[in-house]
This record gives sequence, C-alpha cells and structure tokens, in this order.
Amino acid sequence: MSEPLLLGAIEAGGTKFLCAISDRDGATLMQTRIPTTTPDETLGAASAFFADAIARHGALAAFSIGSFGPLSLNPVAGDYGYITSTPKAGWQDVDLLGYFRDTIAAPTALDTDVNCAAVGERLFGSGQGLDTFCYVTVGTGIGVGVLINGAPHGGANHPEAGHIRLPRAPGDDWFAGSCPYHGDCLEGLACGPAMQARWGAPAETLPSDHQAWEIEADYLAGLCATLTYTVRPDRIIIGGGVMQPPMYDRVRRALTQKLAGYDSSMRAIDMADYVAAPTAGASAGLTGALALAYRTATRQWPMHWTMNETTSIEAEAAHA
Amino acid sequence: MSEPLLLGAIEAGGTKFLCAISDRDGATLMQTRIPTTTPDETLGAASAFFADAIARHGALAAFSIGSFGPLSLNPVAGDYGYITSTPKAGWQDVDLLGYFRDTIAAPTALDTDVNCAAVGERLFGSGQGLDTFCYVTVGTGIGVGVLINGAPHGGANHPEAGHIRLPRAPGDDWFAGSCPYHGDCLEGLACGPAMQARWGAPAETLPSDHQAWEIEADYLAGLCATLTYTVRPDRIIIGGGVMQPPMYDRVRRALTQKLAGYDSSMRAIDMADYVAAPTAGASAGLTGALALAYRTATRQWPMHWTMNETTSIEAEAAHA
Repeated sequence: MSEPLLLGAIEAGGTKFLCAISDRDGATLMQTRIPTTTPDETLGAASAFFADAIARHGALAAFSIGSFGPLSLNPVAGDYGYITSTPKAGWQDVDLLGYFRDTIAAPTALDTDVNCAAVGERLFGSGQGLDTFCYVTVGTGIGVGVLINGAPHGGANHPEAGHIRLPRAPGDDWFAGSCPYHGDCLEGLACGPAMQARWGAPAETLPSDHQAWEIEADYLAGLCATLTYTVRPDRIIIGGGVMQPPMYDRVRRALTQKLAGYDSSMRAIDMADYVAAPTAGASAGLTGALALAYRTATRQWPMHWTMNETTSIEAEAAHA
Repeated sequence: MSEPLLLGAIEAGGTKFLCAISDRDGATLMQTRIPTTTPDETLGAASAFFADAIARHGALAAFSIGSFGPLSLNPVAGDYGYITSTPKAGWQDVDLLGYFRDTIAAPTALDTDVNCAAVGERLFGSGQGLDTFCYVTVGTGIGVGVLINGAPHGGANHPEAGHIRLPRAPGDDWFAGSCPYHGDCLEGLACGPAMQARWGAPAETLPSDHQAWEIEADYLAGLCATLTYTVRPDRIIIGGGVMQPPMYDRVRRALTQKLAGYDSSMRAIDMADYVAAPTAGASAGLTGALALAYRTATRQWPMHWTMNETTSIEAEAAHA
C-alpha cells in the first residue's frame, strides 16, 4: 500500500468548480475553488491547476469529474463526456471531459454531481451500509443520484428524475412552471427558482406556515413515491437549500398518504429512516468524485477512506 | 455438462398457473396449466404436479416462481415469499413460496411475473443484447419489470411502476380511476379494466379512432418518460392486451413530445427502437422463471438456451 496513487477530481457545479488531488487514502494534497463563469475561463483555470499539481506531485493514476448536467455518458456516443442540453447559459454542448485530455494523461471517469454526492454519502453519510438508495438535491434545480448495488446507476445514460411529471399539488393551479424544456415538470414546479418565481420571494424567506411548504412537500413526496415505485431504494436522502428542517416530516407525512398502504414492504418501513437528510457534509460530491477516480484506477471503491482525511476540502478553499 | 440438472418453475398469473420442469438446456420434461381459483386449490394442484414430477424425474436442483404481486422479496422480512396487498380477492397475504417448501427440497427463488418475462425477453426476444431495459405489460393491471445490468432489479423490494401518478391526460378529467389503493394512479387510469369502466366497453372493442386511444397513449408515454428519467433503460418493451398495433406509434409520438428535446442521448434515439413490442412469445414468463431457477442452481444465466426448446410450453398445455 506504499506505492503512490495520485487521484484528481473536480466537482463541477453551476457556481463553482472544486478541484483537488489526493493520495490513495483520500487525503487532500492540493485543492482549489474556481468560480463558474465561461467554459474557457473556468475549464482553463481548472486545467492549469491540474498541470501545476502534476508538476509538483507527479502523474495522476486516474481523474474524474462529477458535474451538473445533463451529460452524455455513453462511451460510444459522439458527444461522450459533453455537458449537453443544460439550461445554464453558455455551457450547452461543452466537451467537459475532452478539455482535460491533453493536460491529464490518465484514465478518466465522469458522472453526475448527484451520483458523486451519493457515493460520498455511501462512504461517510446517510448511505452507509446501503446498496440501493437515491440522493435528491433540491436547490437551483432538482437532481437525483441513484446508487444500485453500491454503484452509480448509469443505464444508457444517467437518471434525470428531477424532470418527471406529477399531478398538480392541491392549491397550485396557476403557476406555469419554470423548466425551459418541460414547463411544469417537477423541477419546473418545485426547484428553488420555481418557488421564488411563484411566490415572489426566495424560498428561505417564506415563513414556515406559508402554503408554499405544503405544496413543496406534496411535490417532493410525489418524487419519493415515484422513486419508490421505480427504483425501490433502501432510503431516499434529500438535501439542498429548499430542504429546511420542518420539511422532512411534511414530506414523510405526504408520502405515507400517497403510498396509501400499498405493498407490505413499504407499510413496514419507518418513514423517519426512509426519508433522511444527507450527513456527509458539503464536500460529499468532491469526495465521491475522488472515490470514482479511485475506482477507475483500482476497480474498487475506497471503503477504507476515513472522513477526516477528505472533509476539509470545502472548508479550506485556498489553492495550496 | 451431462450431469442432470432438473429445474422447476411456475408462472403464477391471475387466471392460470403454468408449471413446468426442464433439463439444464431448458427443454421441457413435464408441464401443466392450472386455473387460478383459491390459493388452497391452485397451490395444492401445483404442489401435486411437482411431487409427481419429482417422483418421475428425480430431485430438482432449483425451483422458482414468477408471480403476480405485490410480493415480499426481502429475505429478512417476516413475510418473505408472500403475495401481499394484491387486489385479487382471496390472494392477500398468501405464503406462496412457503407452500412448496415441504414438497420441494431445493433452493428456491421468487420474482415478479414481469421481471421473469423481462428475463425471457432478454434470452429470446426484444431484450436480446441489452443490459438495462424495462418490460411493461398493460392488461388487467399495469406491470413493469426492470432489468439492470442483465439481472432483475430488486432493490429493497420489486418495482411497482404501474402505480406511479401522472398528470391527467387532456380530455380525461371525469373518471375517478379504478385502483383500490390509489384511485387515479397510472394503473387506475390506464389498465384494461379502467378503460372498460371509463368507456363502458372492453378496450379491444373500441374503434381505432376513439378518443380512448389518444388518452391511453398519453398515459403510457407518461410512464415511458418517467422510466426514462429514473431508470434510463436501453429500451422499453410494451405488451399486453391493450397494446394493439396502432398504439406503438401513438405512444412514440406522445413520448417524443413529452421529452421535448431534453438530453442529447434521448434526442439521438430512434423511437421505433426505443419503444418496442415483446417478441419472445406467450411463454416468456415461464421461460424466465425457469432461467431464474437455472441461475439459482448455477449462479449464471442460461445464455445457451435456444428458443425451440422452451417456447412450446404454453402451446402444449397438457400434463405429460
């Protein structure tokens, strides 16, 4: 275990790119935080960071990115490794993975930000010991990561469960929805910007007895019901800025009503256990991306990593 | 490969139980068809069939059942192997698998009828060569089997995607839905009995220009969109009595509209390839259940089976 194994990873988000290299135990050697502006500027800065890191520490054994999407993850597709039809201005059809091919001569991996965060939750958080679970984040969009048998679910491409359609919640019959593709899909009705557009104020400023929260809980319970009927996870972890603490019980109550006693395996479930908050911290996504790099290099998940080594990444934002 | 490997399986349906034993190549040695009446009567006759088969041919290496559900598939649950909250009268909370434990001293497996049919489609039908796909049947209910990485998806229990909720189709605003648990879930709005209750005539007697078909296509396209966003399969195979030939193009058109160009990997897909009819024949479910028994005995799927050996099961219904 003493041979060096250098790993590089990016958590690519809509507001920032977190970049890091770590050793085989997940201990961070260098890290940086780059604002998400234009692809050339942001990817150029990220590429320069890794060129510098490699000059200082040596070649990477593997490199991976956990990114906002949608992404093209089919290795035989012409646009493999691209960010595709994202609503984020300027970032449509960007060859994200390809941008690093000349800088980084290492095997690469790519997955969604939410699948990487799910991996982080499995290593250190609310997904520990679970084989099949969903990780939902409700913020500027609604993203859903799905781990099946301990690995991120890909299929022909990655899940995009934020874009399912659900019946309108009681009392929500006039808002057209904010998704540029689907209008009133789940994300269009229930992400943070949709709440702000509907109520004229940011979600976090709405009082806890505002009708907005019952409507929001209805939609998120609808998502949980759909995930239950399609993926049948061991747990659904929900986080993101919109998930204020009182929301968890609201979602659990609405989900119980929606399932209506169908399926004995669901009747036996403790809702407080089934719908849970994330606990791996703000760097779960970057940790998961590093873990994906580890798996790319070794064909195994780094189940030996300890949280202390990896959770300081988000806090210490300076480029070492 | 000359050592005998006897396999037993049941396709347990709402109207009939198909029972068979086969050799290691899937060739049927004995078979029978038993009407589904009461659990005691039907399971008693099935049990007697296998006792007779074992007396004639020897002990089984493995035994499996593909059944209507919902089932309890969690091996650590107290009701493992039971049919649970089925709407089928008299069959709630029946210990399906346990009924055979005294008769059949062999490792057993249980999965849904639709997961078994999906295995049959992967061996001989529209799922050949695919790792991740969905098998949907629209008849007296709406069942969805999901194969992920070549194996039936279980999770904490099996999918029940027929019970997702979707927005009402245009023009369908007065029918309350027929699901005893959820009212207007997908099955409650779009299964065969729901169509009959809404229109006052069996689905197959409605003319092809009846508005019923556009409404039905809207719901099934909604199911396909949800499966696309959650499971992201390589293909969705749809069969069952309601899927008359003109329905396929209707569902494909409605699905294209619902996806609305989101996600480049879906834009690149040929809808005629993505939404397809089953082609493994009426015995796909029993073949899949036999294949599940084979996997239980050998830890491998019987990819060497040929269709000729196994597809005569439904046609030759007599007890040999």
